[in-house]
Amino acid sequence: MKKRKYIIGVDVGGTKTASGVITGNGHLVGKIVLPTCARRGRDVSVKQVLSSVSAVLERTGIGKKDLKGIGVCAPGPLDPKRGIVHNPPNLPGWDNVPLPAIIEKKFGVRTELENDANAAGMAEMIWGAARGYKNVFYVTVSTGIGTGIIIGGRIYHGKNGMAGEGGHCTINYDDTGGPCGCGNIGCVESMASGPATSRRLIKKMKKSGGKKSILYRLSGGDLGAITMRTIADAARQKDKLAMDTIKEQGRILGIWLGGMINVLDPGIIVIGGGVSSIGKLIFDEIRKTAYKSTVNVFAAKTPIVPAKLKSDVGIYGAASIVM
Amino acid sequence: MKKRKYIIGVDVGGTKTASGVITGNGHLVGKIVLPTCARRGRDVSVKQVLSSVSAVLERTGIGKKDLKGIGVCAPGPLDPKRGIVHNPPNLPGWDNVPLPAIIEKKFGVRTELENDANAAGMAEMIWGAARGYKNVFYVTVSTGIGTGIIIGGRIYHGKNGMAGEGGHCTINYDDTGGPCGCGNIGCVESMASGPATSRRLIKKMKKSGGKKSILYRLSGGDLGAITMRTIADAARQKDKLAMDTIKEQGRILGIWLGGMINVLDPGIIVIGGGVSSIGKLIFDEIRKTAYKSTVNVFAAKTPIVPAKLKSDVGIYGAASIVM
Repeated sequence: MKKRKYIIGVDVGGTKTASGVITGNGHLVGKIVLPTCARRGRDVSVKQVLSSVSAVLERTGIGKKDLKGIGVCAPGPLDPKRGIVHNPPNLPGWDNVPLPAIIEKKFGVRTELENDANAAGMAEMIWGAARGYKNVFYVTVSTGIGTGIIIGGRIYHGKNGMAGEGGHCTINYDDTGGPCGCGNIGCVESMASGPATSRRLIKKMKKSGGKKSILYRLSGGDLGAITMRTIADAARQKDKLAMDTIKEQGRILGIWLGGMINVLDPGIIVIGGGVSSIGKLIFDEIRKTAYKSTVNVFAAKTPIVPAKLKSDVGIYGAASIVM
Repeated sequence: MKKRKYIIGVDVGGTKTASGVITGNGHLVGKIVLPTCARRGRDVSVKQVLSSVSAVLERTGIGKKDLKGIGVCAPGPLDPKRGIVHNPPNLPGWDNVPLPAIIEKKFGVRTELENDANAAGMAEMIWGAARGYKNVFYVTVSTGIGTGIIIGGRIYHGKNGMAGEGGHCTINYDDTGGPCGCGNIGCVESMASGPATSRRLIKKMKKSGGKKSILYRLSGGDLGAITMRTIADAARQKDKLAMDTIKEQGRILGIWLGGMINVLDPGIIVIGGGVSSIGKLIFDEIRKTAYKSTVNVFAAKTPIVPAKLKSDVGIYGAASIVM
């Protein structure tokens, strides 16, 4: 019998759905990106997901009999064990959709579901920055802060499949800076995500006038247009305010990661999302603070590294759960 | 061949060392408590540990051939996998002591080492409040805050055997209340341990004069003599300041535990140590805050309960690791 050697990874997002065919050694054979059309409701967006799979099979010319399986990752909350997408805020109308069963029915191929940060952590272990490790704490820092925990080479799901939501750990319990998206205060997400960091910088600029900063020019004087990307650009040009803001973001992430090292003592910490491309400036600060903030005497041996899988991490992540 | 049916649990503390013989179904056949004589240095205190084992064997009349094994728990930092007690602050002179090997050599019985919070969590799973659960987050709140993680029925050690130090997660990153014992600021231990809670109350009493509180009388006017026990007594007598202080302690613990539920999604949370005997007043507050502070939609199904094993939890914990 011929070995089934391809996997399809399907990355369902609120805006786009990407499906890709991947070989066992991590080669992306081909991919298709379709709009999810989330606003047009559940039936349309589920159909878009199915179409992306059909299209990538067609484009790559790979038959179902060569497929080992299909992995799907989607925004939470979802139940990976039962294969149910609950009700993600950015997929309106989705209410307990058994997405893997729907895909399996249409294509006749075993299909697994996972939340995106868990899947990305798994992909980093198999093909990325955490190769050779079995215990991985994966973090993605972008609009939000998501985390995934790998223990003994497997995704750790906890009792209800909800483990690994570390971005909503409180690190500033009497914060007065306004609530996090989750409704609580002082979550690390509300303190150190991309938008939180931009807000902190804009506040400082408004206070000081901020005209000395390159950021004033980069944003054309429209402070509201400043994003993490703008800040990172300015920091690369040695703008002091931008550099200080990124260091502060690194410090907050480091304090939180020190706590995560205390709890989990992982083999490696991999950081993906927008932060991963800022480089040494933020990683030096994250490492310094994390190692100082933990009681784990071996902490300094815990590598804290940027993710390797960049724009296709969603496809790789989804594929990894079938591996 | 006759089944070996007894286990010895050895609980090494800075003040006392307790050794007990336990049957498989959790009956404590007999125990011996000796002073550890920690101040007299390593050789004397190791000898006291060995003496406590000899003495309990003698007292119970149980022979080595009936022993399944010996479990030892000691204060951290220690390496359970390699069986080394590093250098606990309250065991001066102990510097990488291979305690289980020393015990094994003397008694010819397999000996295992574990840190005390991990072991207590295991004991609660086998004989206590977490019976029937496989994923347990155990917390002890006394002078410090220790934690132990059980996943799939086993103690989770992490990469270096240092996992489960959740008491040093930062929940108040810009705290100005002075450093934690670990040197960092804003750890939940430095905010909600017994001494931290007493300090908070004493500060309030000093500010207000505090003569209206029963605590003034209970402490004989010596505020420095107030401990968690005094506060719990006053709360039982409906003293408002004491009740408010305990509720605040519960709230802080709840915020932290909400984060731990986010990360670990445990089946049950068991709280031991001094707090476990305060009862409904603090547990109601802990539960309310924890369920509110987590993004886990199943959180309210996670029981948060007081530990069942009280004064002999150290012996039970040590014995449990041989089970």
